[in-house]
Amino acid sequence: MSGNTFGTLFAVTNFGESHGPAVGCVIDGCPPGMDLSEADIQPELDRRRPGTSKFVTQRNEPDAVEILSGVYEGKTTGTPIALLIRNTDQRSKDYGEIARQFRPGHADYTYFKKYGIRDPRGGGRSSARLTAPTVAAGAVAKKWLADQFGVRIRGHMTQIGEVQIPFEDWAQVDQNPFFAATADTQALEDYMGALRKTGDSVGAVLRVTAEGVPVGWGQPLYDKLSADIAWAMMGLNAVKGVEIGDGFASATHKGSMHGDTLLPGGQFATNHDGGVLGGISNGAPIEVKLAIKPTSSILVPRESVDVDDQPIELITKGRHDPCVGIRATPIAEALLALVLIEHALRDRAQCGDVVR
Amino acid sequence: MSGNTFGTLFAVTNFGESHGPAVGCVIDGCPPGMDLSEADIQPELDRRRPGTSKFVTQRNEPDAVEILSGVYEGKTTGTPIALLIRNTDQRSKDYGEIARQFRPGHADYTYFKKYGIRDPRGGGRSSARLTAPTVAAGAVAKKWLADQFGVRIRGHMTQIGEVQIPFEDWAQVDQNPFFAATADTQALEDYMGALRKTGDSVGAVLRVTAEGVPVGWGQPLYDKLSADIAWAMMGLNAVKGVEIGDGFASATHKGSMHGDTLLPGGQFATNHDGGVLGGISNGAPIEVKLAIKPTSSILVPRESVDVDDQPIELITKGRHDPCVGIRATPIAEALLALVLIEHALRDRAQCGDVVR
Amino acid sequence: MSGNTFGTLFAVTNFGESHGPAVGCVIDGCPPGMDLSEADIQPELDRRRPGTSKFVTQRNEPDAVEILSGVYEGKTTGTPIALLIRNTDQRSKDYGEIARQFRPGHADYTYFKKYGIRDPRGGGRSSARLTAPTVAAGAVAKKWLADQFGVRIRGHMTQIGEVQIPFEDWAQVDQNPFFAATADTQALEDYMGALRKTGDSVGAVLRVTAEGVPVGWGQPLYDKLSADIAWAMMGLNAVKGVEIGDGFASATHKGSMHGDTLLPGGQFATNHDGGVLGGISNGAPIEVKLAIKPTSSILVPRESVDVDDQPIELITKGRHDPCVGIRATPIAEALLALVLIEHALRDRAQCGDVVR
Amino acid sequence: MSGNTFGTLFAVTNFGESHGPAVGCVIDGCPPGMDLSEADIQPELDRRRPGTSKFVTQRNEPDAVEILSGVYEGKTTGTPIALLIRNTDQRSKDYGEIARQFRPGHADYTYFKKYGIRDPRGGGRSSARLTAPTVAAGAVAKKWLADQFGVRIRGHMTQIGEVQIPFEDWAQVDQNPFFAATADTQALEDYMGALRKTGDSVGAVLRVTAEGVPVGWGQPLYDKLSADIAWAMMGLNAVKGVEIGDGFASATHKGSMHGDTLLPGGQFATNHDGGVLGGISNGAPIEVKLAIKPTSSILVPRESVDVDDQPIELITKGRHDPCVGIRATPIAEALLALVLIEHALRDRAQCGDVVR
Repeated sequence: MSGNTFGTLFAVTNFGESHGPAVGCVIDGCPPGMDLSEADIQPELDRRRPGTSKFVTQRNEPDAVEILSGVYEGKTTGTPIALLIRNTDQRSKDYGEIARQFRPGHADYTYFKKYGIRDPRGGGRSSARLTAPTVAAGAVAKKWLADQFGVRIRGHMTQIGEVQIPFEDWAQVDQNPFFAATADTQALEDYMGALRKTGDSVGAVLRVTAEGVPVGWGQPLYDKLSADIAWAMMGLNAVKGVEIGDGFASATHKGSMHGDTLLPGGQFATNHDGGVLGGISNGAPIEVKLAIKPTSSILVPRESVDVDDQPIELITKGRHDPCVGIRATPIAEALLALVLIEHALRDRAQCGDVVR
Repeated sequence: MSGNTFGTLFAVTNFGESHGPAVGCVIDGCPPGMDLSEADIQPELDRRRPGTSKFVTQRNEPDAVEILSGVYEGKTTGTPIALLIRNTDQRSKDYGEIARQFRPGHADYTYFKKYGIRDPRGGGRSSARLTAPTVAAGAVAKKWLADQFGVRIRGHMTQIGEVQIPFEDWAQVDQNPFFAATADTQALEDYMGALRKTGDSVGAVLRVTAEGVPVGWGQPLYDKLSADIAWAMMGLNAVKGVEIGDGFASATHKGSMHGDTLLPGGQFATNHDGGVLGGISNGAPIEVKLAIKPTSSILVPRESVDVDDQPIELITKGRHDPCVGIRATPIAEALLALVLIEHALRDRAQCGDVVR
Repeated sequence: MSGNTFGTLFAVTNFGESHGPAVGCVIDGCPPGMDLSEADIQPELDRRRPGTSKFVTQRNEPDAVEILSGVYEGKTTGTPIALLIRNTDQRSKDYGEIARQFRPGHADYTYFKKYGIRDPRGGGRSSARLTAPTVAAGAVAKKWLADQFGVRIRGHMTQIGEVQIPFEDWAQVDQNPFFAATADTQALEDYMGALRKTGDSVGAVLRVTAEGVPVGWGQPLYDKLSADIAWAMMGLNAVKGVEIGDGFASATHKGSMHGDTLLPGGQFATNHDGGVLGGISNGAPIEVKLAIKPTSSILVPRESVDVDDQPIELITKGRHDPCVGIRATPIAEALLALVLIEHALRDRAQCGDVVR
Repeated sequence: MSGNTFGTLFAVTNFGESHGPAVGCVIDGCPPGMDLSEADIQPELDRRRPGTSKFVTQRNEPDAVEILSGVYEGKTTGTPIALLIRNTDQRSKDYGEIARQFRPGHADYTYFKKYGIRDPRGGGRSSARLTAPTVAAGAVAKKWLADQFGVRIRGHMTQIGEVQIPFEDWAQVDQNPFFAATADTQALEDYMGALRKTGDSVGAVLRVTAEGVPVGWGQPLYDKLSADIAWAMMGLNAVKGVEIGDGFASATHKGSMHGDTLLPGGQFATNHDGGVLGGISNGAPIEVKLAIKPTSSILVPRESVDVDDQPIELITKGRHDPCVGIRATPIAEALLALVLIEHALRDRAQCGDVVR
């Protein structure tokens, strides 16, 4: 209700601030009997963590996860799994000067107005650092989906600023700092290198997909699978647009072309609908795209106001991602996993007897 | 949990099928003491209802709403408001032949697979007819938002198929059958007239906006105002994409350009963020766009399969919207109203003491 | 959230007022494929309905239920089941004079203070009439529990006022107007006959039990099966106490006597715990008792205050149950059924893979 | 949904096992701007903690609480408050021998059957140790209720085994190890001393009350304040009965005697209803009683079965409370506080405009 829990049957409650003692989450509803250890979670955190290249923030955090509960002798027990990630590189001094200032495009202003108080250290609660617990919980969901259904969730960048990134090969995605599915990332390196020198930031688009999702996940009317995916993705920091399947391109489509022809055996000739029909998965791959705005914290001087409503010129220092979209790939994968496990469990609750 | 309730503090539970005896909803959580009668709701239903022009389905329903509870002597009592809309034009014979067939792009297939059973009459539960109760509930929400905060929610079409529709004047929107904010709709009439003759359908884009929303509505981390808007809109039949503010165009923006400059007095120089920062309203107008795919039920013959997984040639007869997007405007307004009232009440619960 | 929905996976949203046009509910989450018609529901409503003997209110309502949605060709479809019961015997004139008065022990006062407005006709929303939709929904739950698991839910009165009612035979319960499990109800008839002449009312205790509940239903920590039963029962009008198993008598028990000895084959030597251990069903019968206070609306003159906080002498006229507890038996059975189906579905969601 | 979250607007998600690394909780929804530090929470934990007298378990835990998030410069920020309590006295060896045995009256059996796995160390998740995070969260709720409304929540024992404990003076409650509101506890000491020597355990009854609750908290129909109190209390380990106001004694009451006479000024002549009318607080003190069964872990040998369904003789060793009810007083207070703050916030959401 207060915005910090994802899901209800597989419910992830997130806590922490960027520069507090720790961030973490509690997962309530994980099915019992699944093998689980920190080693299943840490690799996903490592994909998301800062400091891995010169194109992301230089904050240096190991993001080591500790399982506090819910696992006994290497298996989940069905009770809450608490995951703790201690913050270790909190340089509060970097942010001190902006405690009274509102950064354009940033949640500073709205948090302060909403709550009458805000934790200004590193963006406090609105920091992208809070995606770490989401990624950790998503790793648990991913594992269950893979173990039980063979679901495979993957993502890659399709655009950074004006640079389009072709999809060539999934195997390339973890071979470069851009989550690009291509071997040739020279243009991206040049583009981002030039951007860094200006102190400015840029937006991005990424694609995330899930293969192996069986037909039948998703609830009509309001809690459509597509709706919950849109909710999850639009809830990720800086996201401004979400598409399922053909998305906005659908507007110019004719019905005779757009409707995916059903073939015998639960197959489809095309996938314009991105794996969701009437809000329910149809067995085709789930296809999602999201647009991410440029990072709000930039080194370029800007005009703004302060907490006393006085005009100021604002210069943000500190360490920031020039394109916050880059590290969003593992996060978007985690979010998709969390939506899917929630719907898998809901479907099992209501339709556990249906023979498909 | 099973997908038919919108919201928690202002919870709308929707029921009914296209060709059952009735559709309707129960609103639980409407604040007490508000003037309310059927006359506040019927005009919104009339905007959505079919049969109003040759460009929408010819099904003819008065969509007369009856308030069954929750109102005493013209005022809401704080108890559940049940709204009933009897179905009066159910021509089940139109649909009989497709009870065993799956229409490409339609929820036929996924409903049948999920539940092992489906009501084939007029699309059953997956019919766009189920947006009528949503619109009725949205009318109640709209009234409260207007009465309490002066919030004004409006929408218009920006694109039908390949035809872009310029925004010229809000006053025009209710003067033509396209919800177009322009006086000159000749091109649209020609385009849609030609489309109807082919028996095909087409997609659309529409914009919906809310002015007067105060700063502070929306919850971090997951239940962002923008996330809940995306959920609501993507949950509308046939929607495949949602944007807040600049949406996908943000990908090419620089941070120095995109971040909306704060001015004294709670104003912003621009509105690239569409009225939401960090998931919380910032006082600027809420700006949303949604892309709607072409209607799945078309008169053009297509290949598909039936319930026995056998290939068939399928011809849909009956009455359908050639562009289901057209009637989506009042629905999208209702959905935005429902999201906003939910967040208004959540904010009042947690931050009722904060002086803004 | 606003109090009118029971359950989440099998969610029953209740609406209506005693003297409005109708009462009813929407069930969201009923599994698909179950045979269902009005004939499955009406008998339970008939057990609860008023006017069946001189010992209950003389209000005469057929309480005929109409299924508005969610059933197609005699089977549930997995979509919301709306149930409508039209009010037919609303004598608002009986209640007109007390619209400004607060009856001692009645919700008049608290509703008025909470909402600033109340529907005074027949108790409005706080009337026991609103248990009719609960009973209707409970009939659906009962049927599913019986069909799927062979669960059998029954209840009977154990005490009316000072009269203890021995348990002799389930078959007697429907043979007398007191839901007494005994053939000899002469003492009760005499007691209640004398009470009616005084215009006063009296309290009661009843027992409800469920046999055939498998081991494993119920959630730790807070949502224990016993906790949700207590919630359901204490939410029934006029209930002031709830016991599971030995209840308050447990206070004087020794651990060596109270702990139910486990026998091979999932049996227990005793059932002091009433079928729940650590909040989870243990396979023994669920045993619940509830205490119901005397009806608040009595014909005896009393002192009170009115809406202007002025002292008054109040005389309630109209038709009332001299012991509201009597008709509570079918309602308590329905409530227990609703709790059990909710937990059956939750268990299936999380532990659907566990081999028991 | 999976049972480990208390409340929705003030949502407390509990995690941990008795002998895992830590127990704790996350509070989501605490209003911002309240002064809060560990010093506000620790005293309540100290009242609950073990090892304080020879009449409670000899486990020795400091139960030191750490605030991990949600507080900045001594004030709540409106974001999640994570509370961590490290376990320090886990003697797993005490429990090793019973990993394959089911204790009569204990959750061993049902946890194992439900999940197919259980953490046997010290009762794992079903241990009363998990009430520590509840007490910590309750301390936060208590503080807000006191600060905002002057609500005062207190409890005391009224019965231990056969010994009735008279209420004489609140000031005595913290002066003896029995939470007895009397100066003369010699009989209790003798009774408990004798009990300890037998290795057996005994049940108890306690009373908890809240003064200063304003009229208007609580939701009809199902989420009555009384229903939620019953849910909270029956969810506490070992509770088998709950009463509001006169409870089971109401069964023999006449309506003319039971109905609390309203006096001018929002006062009542009596409080048979225990402060709740129609599920909504009426301004009188909230009065609750709960019955607690004897501790299941006793030193007396008993018959039972093991995980292979074989009969065994079972002897529990280790450290246990001879009367688990004694330490329940601060827990019941915490539970009542959590119910009240939830309803305070719900009321503010829906009825924030009502003038009372």
